[in-house]
Amino acid sequence: MKSRGLSEFLGEVIGTFTLILLGDGVVANVGLAPRLASPAYNWNTITIGWAFAVIVAVYVSAGVSGAHLNPAVTIALAVKRGFSWSKVPTYILGQFVGAFLGALGVYLVYMEGLQAAGMPNVWCTGPGSVFGQAFWGGTGGGSVGAYSLVNASIAEIVGTAVLLMGVLASGDERNLGLKFNMGPFLVGGTVLAVGLSLGGPSGYAINPARDLGPRIFGALVGTQGLFDGIYWLVAPVIMPIIGGILGAVIYDALVTAQLPPKKD
Amino acid sequence: MKSRGLSEFLGEVIGTFTLILLGDGVVANVGLAPRLASPAYNWNTITIGWAFAVIVAVYVSAGVSGAHLNPAVTIALAVKRGFSWSKVPTYILGQFVGAFLGALGVYLVYMEGLQAAGMPNVWCTGPGSVFGQAFWGGTGGGSVGAYSLVNASIAEIVGTAVLLMGVLASGDERNLGLKFNMGPFLVGGTVLAVGLSLGGPSGYAINPARDLGPRIFGALVGTQGLFDGIYWLVAPVIMPIIGGILGAVIYDALVTAQLPPKKD
Amino acid sequence: MKSRGLSEFLGEVIGTFTLILLGDGVVANVGLAPRLASPAYNWNTITIGWAFAVIVAVYVSAGVSGAHLNPAVTIALAVKRGFSWSKVPTYILGQFVGAFLGALGVYLVYMEGLQAAGMPNVWCTGPGSVFGQAFWGGTGGGSVGAYSLVNASIAEIVGTAVLLMGVLASGDERNLGLKFNMGPFLVGGTVLAVGLSLGGPSGYAINPARDLGPRIFGALVGTQGLFDGIYWLVAPVIMPIIGGILGAVIYDALVTAQLPPKKD
Amino acid sequence: MKSRGLSEFLGEVIGTFTLILLGDGVVANVGLAPRLASPAYNWNTITIGWAFAVIVAVYVSAGVSGAHLNPAVTIALAVKRGFSWSKVPTYILGQFVGAFLGALGVYLVYMEGLQAAGMPNVWCTGPGSVFGQAFWGGTGGGSVGAYSLVNASIAEIVGTAVLLMGVLASGDERNLGLKFNMGPFLVGGTVLAVGLSLGGPSGYAINPARDLGPRIFGALVGTQGLFDGIYWLVAPVIMPIIGGILGAVIYDALVTAQLPPKKD
Repeated sequence: MKSRGLSEFLGEVIGTFTLILLGDGVVANVGLAPRLASPAYNWNTITIGWAFAVIVAVYVSAGVSGAHLNPAVTIALAVKRGFSWSKVPTYILGQFVGAFLGALGVYLVYMEGLQAAGMPNVWCTGPGSVFGQAFWGGTGGGSVGAYSLVNASIAEIVGTAVLLMGVLASGDERNLGLKFNMGPFLVGGTVLAVGLSLGGPSGYAINPARDLGPRIFGALVGTQGLFDGIYWLVAPVIMPIIGGILGAVIYDALVTAQLPPKKD
Repeated sequence: MKSRGLSEFLGEVIGTFTLILLGDGVVANVGLAPRLASPAYNWNTITIGWAFAVIVAVYVSAGVSGAHLNPAVTIALAVKRGFSWSKVPTYILGQFVGAFLGALGVYLVYMEGLQAAGMPNVWCTGPGSVFGQAFWGGTGGGSVGAYSLVNASIAEIVGTAVLLMGVLASGDERNLGLKFNMGPFLVGGTVLAVGLSLGGPSGYAINPARDLGPRIFGALVGTQGLFDGIYWLVAPVIMPIIGGILGAVIYDALVTAQLPPKKD
Repeated sequence: MKSRGLSEFLGEVIGTFTLILLGDGVVANVGLAPRLASPAYNWNTITIGWAFAVIVAVYVSAGVSGAHLNPAVTIALAVKRGFSWSKVPTYILGQFVGAFLGALGVYLVYMEGLQAAGMPNVWCTGPGSVFGQAFWGGTGGGSVGAYSLVNASIAEIVGTAVLLMGVLASGDERNLGLKFNMGPFLVGGTVLAVGLSLGGPSGYAINPARDLGPRIFGALVGTQGLFDGIYWLVAPVIMPIIGGILGAVIYDALVTAQLPPKKD
Repeated sequence: MKSRGLSEFLGEVIGTFTLILLGDGVVANVGLAPRLASPAYNWNTITIGWAFAVIVAVYVSAGVSGAHLNPAVTIALAVKRGFSWSKVPTYILGQFVGAFLGALGVYLVYMEGLQAAGMPNVWCTGPGSVFGQAFWGGTGGGSVGAYSLVNASIAEIVGTAVLLMGVLASGDERNLGLKFNMGPFLVGGTVLAVGLSLGGPSGYAINPARDLGPRIFGALVGTQGLFDGIYWLVAPVIMPIIGGILGAVIYDALVTAQLPPKKD
């Protein structure tokens, strides 16, 4: 079999492109006024939008590259599932290229709305993002909890750990893994759960490419403040990598090692 | 085997009828005041309503005609999947007849509400539609982004491209295609994702029959302004056809051509 | 094989009990103030609640009686699918007993709330129901469309026809019927679609037992006006029976008769 | 085969940890101001959050311990399904340890928000909980129905009975049990239905470990009033155990005993 390196790269590109087109797309759809002021959109819109962004993206690309679509997944699989380290750079590069192009897609679809609103940050998580403004300041109240970088980092670690636990469970034949290609619905459901339940403090990046790829794009089209301080590097990039490995370690210690021996 | 032309025509009629009855039905249900002013309905209602409109419609008609229910799907399948061009006119005619009849069904179910409200445009997308008024002007704010025909056209192209990618993935056995007749849930999920994430600028027609069939019906029952300008032809009719072909081309270049060879 | 009459009766009782306990339960949960005044509940709550009421109820009882849970389903199956007319009275009696007991369950769970609110109509559809007050008058606006009995009747016919089309499709092996016991998710999805899209004018009874059983219970516990006029008999009882038969006739004419011959 | 006691204990720990991390997580996410005052979150957020908390938690742990994650389930299975009474203490201990650790996880993720808000009760159900304040008092209206301990107890019994009926149906091969590891979606759907439809009066603990484990944690970190009176013991601890047994008894009487004999 010839090398599948280019194909896998393209699989990660198209998958992560679809993920960010639909994921940042729902943020733009909710975030662009005048809907901000209305009850027509809510946190359910955001989280269901991201969940189906994941589901569609995984079904589109899984046969080509396995649909990691996330450096935290790729690295955790390399650390704990024997995914070849030699492939890791190709996968992560594909994820960043796809995420950047997905942000370009969102820019094209919402161009006039973005320009009219002064090019707000629909691209990535953290201080100044539409997530924060839409649901905190946008409703007239000051934030009771303005989460610090430390707190946001904890949220990213825990959220990504849960993501990996769901991803590993979805295909685990010795556990209750889904069969007949139904697994992506559990992966999407896990992302939905992380968003609904753990997404508040940091906006649940839980994926370095999802956050940094569109952040670079946003800076290029004039969104302000995206690289102020070190938030952009710590909470949505480094912490998901740590959290992903942590989730895989927990899963293997408390699940894989505890499963009964295979019967057949 | 005798020609299945009439059966396939009827399959597209009943399927597209069901799609529009339920799809325009949720628009009417949300759009007819006094609910407009209340938080009882939101964009989630609309997009979940359309998603299950698709799911029910596909399950009802797929065994008969394959449930295209959308000229953009039919044409893309003719261009990229060998669907017989000789069948294309029959399919598209069935889709328009079904969409027109579906709008008639919505008219019958919401007749008194529509009359009391001055026969608003619950039929199709674009300027003056209930979509636009309900979620933009209806909440008291001016639209930050009044999207131009060019921007709306981009949104229709991108949205329909994503639709085709999801449709093609849902049944792709070499990829992670769904088995045992579960595919329509991914198709419905893709329409949900397109609505949540890309539906803002143009109301996501992504289907010429879905938009033009009910538009003709609406004009006949007295809804004003449906054929002003060329919006009705460009954004919801021509662009979805282009977008559908584009989505199939992208899918084949970045997915089909990159899939590993079949093992068995 | 001995007669399964009593078992089938009990299956319909426990299934319809579960359906109404959860279905009227979500109406009570949403309808009892002070939540009425808040954005904490919406039409999505109601329709998703009924959808999962159906799903849970069908999974609980389908192995025993086939889970009709609805006289409109039972009669349509007798007319078009050879369901024995001799069983019809037993099934319908079980459905009414179950629906009455389900309403009793809702009464027990929400007793103090119902009493504090003056025993509002959380039981059934039509004029004076919590559905109507919560989402129409409850939000401060007068109803633009106060739907007449004729309009409500049309809505019940169309809604029940769509229900039957979904039910028949869900198990149709020659069509795209669901396999491996997944069918109830399509049945629940069809009820969700009917509620979201066609539920406005009449509150989508689409089931004589669902409406009349709890209506009788409601009258016994003091809810006023439940049997004023003939609405209670026409829109939610007679019309769903007509609509159910109509849906089965349409399905057989436009789907069953058009399906390709079985290959194996 | 060696004893699997420790493995099963760890399975219940990781499963219940995941359940409470995500379940109490969504309560914290919704409950922490300023979102309280906004329409950005609603009861749908809460109930969908808990549903996917269940789904993810069950898929993570089912292969190890069967994923009871709830003393009411464990005891009902011991009473009616022959689950070994000798294992019951291990399972319940694992559930409490997991629930306590899950609350710790929520504390870490939302630490600054919780501290800024004065450490509100996001931990458990009943008087003073964020559930009650957010959706009752938080919207400016007085509660029409301030439910008594008796009424709340009825709600917990009925809700847990429905939970057990759904759990038993999900895996019942003689009934319409789900195959190929899809069962957890029905279990999650049942929890969704119980929350939407029966969750109002008591906040649907329906699980002694879910309520008491986080309650103990909450008391340790300074949340006030968690052990006032006897509510904490009666409604969310004793009543779910009674309700779970009741649900299993009803299921066996009206479903199991009525199923037709197996054909093969």
